[in-house]
Amino acid sequence: MTAPLPLPPLHRRPLHDSGPLFSPRPPRRLGESALLRVRVPASYPVDVVALRAVIDGEIRTSRLRCVDEDPTGAWWETELRAENPVVRYRFCLLGPGSEDVPAYAWLTAAGLVPWDVSDATDFRLVVHESAPDWVADAIVYQVFPDRFARSASSPADSEGRPAPADLPGWAVPMRWDEEPAVQGELTARQLFGGDLDGVIEHLDHVASLGADTLYLTPVFPAGSVHRYDASTFDRVDPLLGGDEALVRLSAALHARGMRLLLDLTTNHTGDTHEWFRAAQADPASPEAGFYLFTDHPSSYRSWLDAVPSLPKLDLRSPELRRRLVEGPGSVVARYLREPLRADGWRIDVANMTGRHDDVDVAHDVARSIRATLRALDQDGEPSHWLLAEHGHDASADLAGDGWHGTMNYTGFTRPLWAWLTDPASDLNWLGLPTTIPRLPGQAIARTIVDYGAQLSWSARQHSQNQLASHDTPRTRSVVGTRERQIVAVAALAALPGVPTLFAGDELGARGTTGEHSRTPMPWEAIAAEDPERIDTEVLRATRALLGLRRQEVALRQGGLALLHAADDVLVLARTHPDGDVVVVLARAALDGPLELDLDVLPGISGFEDLHAEGPLEASSRGTVLVLRADGPGAVLLRTRRP
Amino acid sequence: MTAPLPLPPLHRRPLHDSGPLFSPRPPRRLGESALLRVRVPASYPVDVVALRAVIDGEIRTSRLRCVDEDPTGAWWETELRAENPVVRYRFCLLGPGSEDVPAYAWLTAAGLVPWDVSDATDFRLVVHESAPDWVADAIVYQVFPDRFARSASSPADSEGRPAPADLPGWAVPMRWDEEPAVQGELTARQLFGGDLDGVIEHLDHVASLGADTLYLTPVFPAGSVHRYDASTFDRVDPLLGGDEALVRLSAALHARGMRLLLDLTTNHTGDTHEWFRAAQADPASPEAGFYLFTDHPSSYRSWLDAVPSLPKLDLRSPELRRRLVEGPGSVVARYLREPLRADGWRIDVANMTGRHDDVDVAHDVARSIRATLRALDQDGEPSHWLLAEHGHDASADLAGDGWHGTMNYTGFTRPLWAWLTDPASDLNWLGLPTTIPRLPGQAIARTIVDYGAQLSWSARQHSQNQLASHDTPRTRSVVGTRERQIVAVAALAALPGVPTLFAGDELGARGTTGEHSRTPMPWEAIAAEDPERIDTEVLRATRALLGLRRQEVALRQGGLALLHAADDVLVLARTHPDGDVVVVLARAALDGPLELDLDVLPGISGFEDLHAEGPLEASSRGTVLVLRADGPGAVLLRTRRP
Repeated sequence: MTAPLPLPPLHRRPLHDSGPLFSPRPPRRLGESALLRVRVPASYPVDVVALRAVIDGEIRTSRLRCVDEDPTGAWWETELRAENPVVRYRFCLLGPGSEDVPAYAWLTAAGLVPWDVSDATDFRLVVHESAPDWVADAIVYQVFPDRFARSASSPADSEGRPAPADLPGWAVPMRWDEEPAVQGELTARQLFGGDLDGVIEHLDHVASLGADTLYLTPVFPAGSVHRYDASTFDRVDPLLGGDEALVRLSAALHARGMRLLLDLTTNHTGDTHEWFRAAQADPASPEAGFYLFTDHPSSYRSWLDAVPSLPKLDLRSPELRRRLVEGPGSVVARYLREPLRADGWRIDVANMTGRHDDVDVAHDVARSIRATLRALDQDGEPSHWLLAEHGHDASADLAGDGWHGTMNYTGFTRPLWAWLTDPASDLNWLGLPTTIPRLPGQAIARTIVDYGAQLSWSARQHSQNQLASHDTPRTRSVVGTRERQIVAVAALAALPGVPTLFAGDELGARGTTGEHSRTPMPWEAIAAEDPERIDTEVLRATRALLGLRRQEVALRQGGLALLHAADDVLVLARTHPDGDVVVVLARAALDGPLELDLDVLPGISGFEDLHAEGPLEASSRGTVLVLRADGPGAVLLRTRRP
Repeated sequence: MTAPLPLPPLHRRPLHDSGPLFSPRPPRRLGESALLRVRVPASYPVDVVALRAVIDGEIRTSRLRCVDEDPTGAWWETELRAENPVVRYRFCLLGPGSEDVPAYAWLTAAGLVPWDVSDATDFRLVVHESAPDWVADAIVYQVFPDRFARSASSPADSEGRPAPADLPGWAVPMRWDEEPAVQGELTARQLFGGDLDGVIEHLDHVASLGADTLYLTPVFPAGSVHRYDASTFDRVDPLLGGDEALVRLSAALHARGMRLLLDLTTNHTGDTHEWFRAAQADPASPEAGFYLFTDHPSSYRSWLDAVPSLPKLDLRSPELRRRLVEGPGSVVARYLREPLRADGWRIDVANMTGRHDDVDVAHDVARSIRATLRALDQDGEPSHWLLAEHGHDASADLAGDGWHGTMNYTGFTRPLWAWLTDPASDLNWLGLPTTIPRLPGQAIARTIVDYGAQLSWSARQHSQNQLASHDTPRTRSVVGTRERQIVAVAALAALPGVPTLFAGDELGARGTTGEHSRTPMPWEAIAAEDPERIDTEVLRATRALLGLRRQEVALRQGGLALLHAADDVLVLARTHPDGDVVVVLARAALDGPLELDLDVLPGISGFEDLHAEGPLEASSRGTVLVLRADGPGAVLLRTRRP
């Protein structure tokens, strides 16, 4: 703690990750064995590489075999049987040690550690059934329905404000190009009149970004424009076009080979919900048991115990479970079946669902929803994605048998914001009483690696990475400049996790609060690629970078090796047997050229250029990468294997 | 990762721990509030100290108030309500930053971290009922019954070998002073003939060490001398004196105000157990459901699936639960009731109990045993200790509602061994394919602090710290010298956790394997304090250091602040409102004097000497401690508050 312990630089450390290069045969069933491979660079002398695994709660240790050696390093291998649904493991590296190589160190999912650590960051074999195959390859586009697009046929008044036949009392109709209120009571009421047929009309735009999955925030009738306060789960809001429009949208997506993710709140309903009305009307009603009344009918538990318009559900109620989440008659099932055929659910406030006082049935609810999804699969293979909203440390909720993944604010959004933030930003730090801190690359790498290590690889792969959402300021407002936004998009395209783009971010749109970020899409400007109204450079870069992810299997399914982290630059590899992709991100100019010999990546002979953004240059001499940057930029290269 | 991030030295960092100085009013029931205090040294500029807590799965943040300030630092305070049984929290420190002070940092139970971290090392409010009050104050002495003492009346043959009327077939009688086999088949069969009345005859010795709790490894009849392969749980082995002798021992202990901890294996029985015999004899018997037969009667799951003499129990069986762990008729209950009146159980192989394939009822079994204990309490307060054997990372098994604590190999034994090991040691590293690594103080401090942070403070306080056990080499053989052994004993006396001494360690006895460590106690040499046969200096130091723990409430109940860690020296404080105890441990000579200004300890004006061992000297000028060491040693000082 006072003196540094010996450790080689990141790019000379032994490597293992849960991707297909190092774990080429992940077990899918109890009793199957994994092949585990560790690459030890020649500069890192070892005598023994040992495996430490936890089976039935007990440690088992064994030695790896050195199976291949060349001038740059050696491959060590072993097998590990999945005797439990989750088997934690790590490696112990033992050798003579040297000035910068420890004689004793652990290789965990958090990297190389020269002291004894807890099992929290162990690698994991997980044989709980994983998310459907399509999820790891997906790119998600998030649409807030009221703000995306009004269909040609949508009713409007003479000034262009929405004028539906059944305008709810709360709604304040707005012109599409009107500035919304950014804070205060109006934010939940400003109805711009986007609808689902409007989304259908703009699927070309979605597809042009490389996205193949549309995520819609709630579509239920509600007491607000965000619709997280549902008044029923029985139908799609007529303001959006009703069930028929959702059927049309679903069909249009599937016809393009695209998918649809819907949004359900399991923690609470609106106080206008038919269940809550019935519960308040009659304490003997079945619905009265769906909520947590402290003094019927006026006092009850609500979201954060602070928002009475959002009464909290009591998921211990079997009847509520049956109606909402469990079995073929549930809300969860109904929207996944014909004719609506959504491909999964994003569960709002999943982190609070079923939790209050000494009650915690959150895991149980997650498993129950998972079972409902699974029962709908036609051909035996899982086909639906189950994603949990979770704003902080979701690791304990991602055991493998419930939610497939989370919205990865902690492991992606926060570190990217903290690295790329506008130094002058006065935006709030996602709930903490401060503005966004500007942290050096070493700090954000620690968060990405250490927090990522708390998740199974499956949970990490099947979680959403997002730079912004309908709940946050916009990426552009966070990072301040086009250049840094493009670096952020490169990170979105390059890191493990499902890239998720909030509609409008691709235009360089600004927004300082969740509501402010929900400004309607400027379709005319998009069609005209008008550089005065949208940032066409960000749009181009988003298409290029997400397109690259579509093209490169290593970016979608490769493991992750962190190779260099300094204040202003991060270098990582997505490791894959078909060629790794090396990703260089710079947030600012570099003082001088940075040279890294990346021969720790096994068997590579050099690099091929894939893509570059900004004044960041990568050249190479064999396995040595030479990096120069005059400002923020990103470079992606494919490694060559002879 | 390439460049260090700004961080002040350990003794200039803000402090909070879960002890009575910083958390003076821990909540005991849901809904009660804790007062939380953070000390920020004057050298650490802050503008805001914020609290981040997880309530109902969601983050709540608030600001602390600065309630007091003096030239050395400031007190910040807040309250936090225990709205769930376990509430995780940490602090965010925000300020201008400086060369060695981060502008943004988290204070967690693992210390100060200048990047975003997962919740794994958060502090915890836990309102699950804690262990009985006596446990935090306890000092345990571990006795392996066959090897501790033969009573005056115990039958022997002419050569002094045990000659009981009912010598079991497996037993190989040995003279008390005979060298045991150290490895191989004989190790389980060498009967030296210690008995429980022999223990009674030597309680003065136990008490002279400051110990107040006797922990006996199993006392059931079995197929071996270690008795972990019980053949019945219905009675005490007649070789040890039977039930009557245990009643006498229990009464003798309680008459001295001492306590008794027994040892029960819930993971397996011996294959000679009456249940297993009945199970093998009849597949329709109730007992057949107690085990995991794969092909009745000859194939069944066993300990590690490798030791058929230890058939594994299936704790899913309600009848087994009832007989073994659940309710007043269970084995667990019987030995705690009159007339046996033990004060708790150490559960052998608790980490594997109820775990195999995709079955994991370990938590459930722990909660069930806890409930059985609780039902026996007379006056409403908990009185029995429930301790889990766990050889590695027990954190996930110590949620608060099951086991009170664990045998803390990971957070104590391993780091102490790795710091103090004889550099020439060829002893195995507790199961890993290597000898014990010699690690610098920084590494062992990281393990103690980081792993400790994964446990609630209650679990840490109510776990056993031990330098050695009947399963390991002896402390003296690990560390090699008297001087380092005394430093190890000082750590045992000084760190949070229940000091647990394996009988004979206080004599400087050697032992290179579990069996080798079980050599019988040389009572004549002890009585004579014969320096040729026992290490009387280690005996003196053990009495003095454990005696100091008895005397100083801060050593028993204080929080823990790590103040300095270097290769060969560790400085820590057990923080307490009645005066902290500063503990200095050196494993070797220091190059020059080490000066530390410890005014981070709030409100102190200086130090009082408590105890010193070896050529380690501490002097002070006000709050500055000056340390010199010519070799291994330990110093303990009490801080003065005006």
